[in-house]
Amino acid sequence: MSDTEFVIEPGRQDIIMTRVFGAPREVVFRAVTDPELIPRWWGPHFLTTRVDLMEVRPGGRWRYVNIDARGREYAFGGVYHDVVAPERFVRTWAFEGWPEDVALETVTLVEADGRTKYVAQSVHRSVEARDAIVRADGPRGGRESMDRLAEVLASH
Amino acid sequence: MSDTEFVIEPGRQDIIMTRVFGAPREVVFRAVTDPELIPRWWGPHFLTTRVDLMEVRPGGRWRYVNIDARGREYAFGGVYHDVVAPERFVRTWAFEGWPEDVALETVTLVEADGRTKYVAQSVHRSVEARDAIVRADGPRGGRESMDRLAEVLASH
Repeated sequence: MSDTEFVIEPGRQDIIMTRVFGAPREVVFRAVTDPELIPRWWGPHFLTTRVDLMEVRPGGRWRYVNIDARGREYAFGGVYHDVVAPERFVRTWAFEGWPEDVALETVTLVEADGRTKYVAQSVHRSVEARDAIVRADGPRGGRESMDRLAEVLASH
Repeated sequence: MSDTEFVIEPGRQDIIMTRVFGAPREVVFRAVTDPELIPRWWGPHFLTTRVDLMEVRPGGRWRYVNIDARGREYAFGGVYHDVVAPERFVRTWAFEGWPEDVALETVTLVEADGRTKYVAQSVHRSVEARDAIVRADGPRGGRESMDRLAEVLASH
C-alpha cells in the first residue's frame, strides 16, 4: 500500500511526487539529509544503495550507487544548489549513463498537525528526457523509496 | 542588429537562446568561463556587472551582481553541476530576490566551419516562473549579452 501521489502531465517537463509522513518536519528533514540513512530507503526494493558522496550544503556534491543482485552498479549524482533546513533542498541530478540529461530536484517539506508533506519535484531538460525516466520506472522507484522512508521514520 | 534566436513555447518550462559566433569553440568556451571577461558582456547594456564568485568546476559556486545607474544591486547565482570543456557547462541559477525559482542552465557549444553555435537552455520549475523571467525582460538581457559577447570575441 502506498499513499504516494504523482503529477506527470503530458507535454510538461517535470514530475511531482508527494507523500505525507506521520512525523515532524525536523525529523523528516534529518532523515532525508543523513548519508547513513540513505541506504535504508533510497531506491527501489530490489536494489541496494551505497552512498559514495553526500555533502549537504550549497555546492556540495552527492553520488549514490544502486547495485543489483548480479553486482551491476548504476550511479546517480549531482550538486546541491541550496539547503534550507528544515524546509527544502535543491539539487541537480543525472544518471551517469545519461550525463547530458541533467535534472533539477527540489524537495520541499511542509508541516501541518505534526505530519509532514514531502514534495519532490524533478524538472527535466525536455519532455522526452522526462518521459524516458517515466518509461525507466522512475516513479516506481520513487514510490518504493517513499514506502521505505515511512518505515524508517516509524522505527525512530 | 542581433542574430540571437529564442525558442519560448507556450506551456513549456524552458527558454532556449541560440547565437552563432565567428570564432572557434575553444575561444568561445574560454570567454564564457573567464571571470575577468564576464563584466564585459554579461547582462543588459544599461547595467554594470560585478563577479563576486565564479568557480568553474562541478560543485563550484557563482554569483554575479548587476548594478544600475543609482547603485542598486541585483544578484544572481548558483552552482556548477558539470563543466566539459570546450563542449558545455551545466549550472543552476536563481535571482536572489526569488530564491525559490531555481532554474537549470545548460550551455552547449557546437563548432562548424570555424564558427560556433552557442545554445543556452534555461529550464524553470514551472511555466509561471519561466513566464515571469520573460516578462522581466530576461530575453532582452540575453540578446544584449550575446551582442556584447560578439564584440568581445571580435576584439580578441
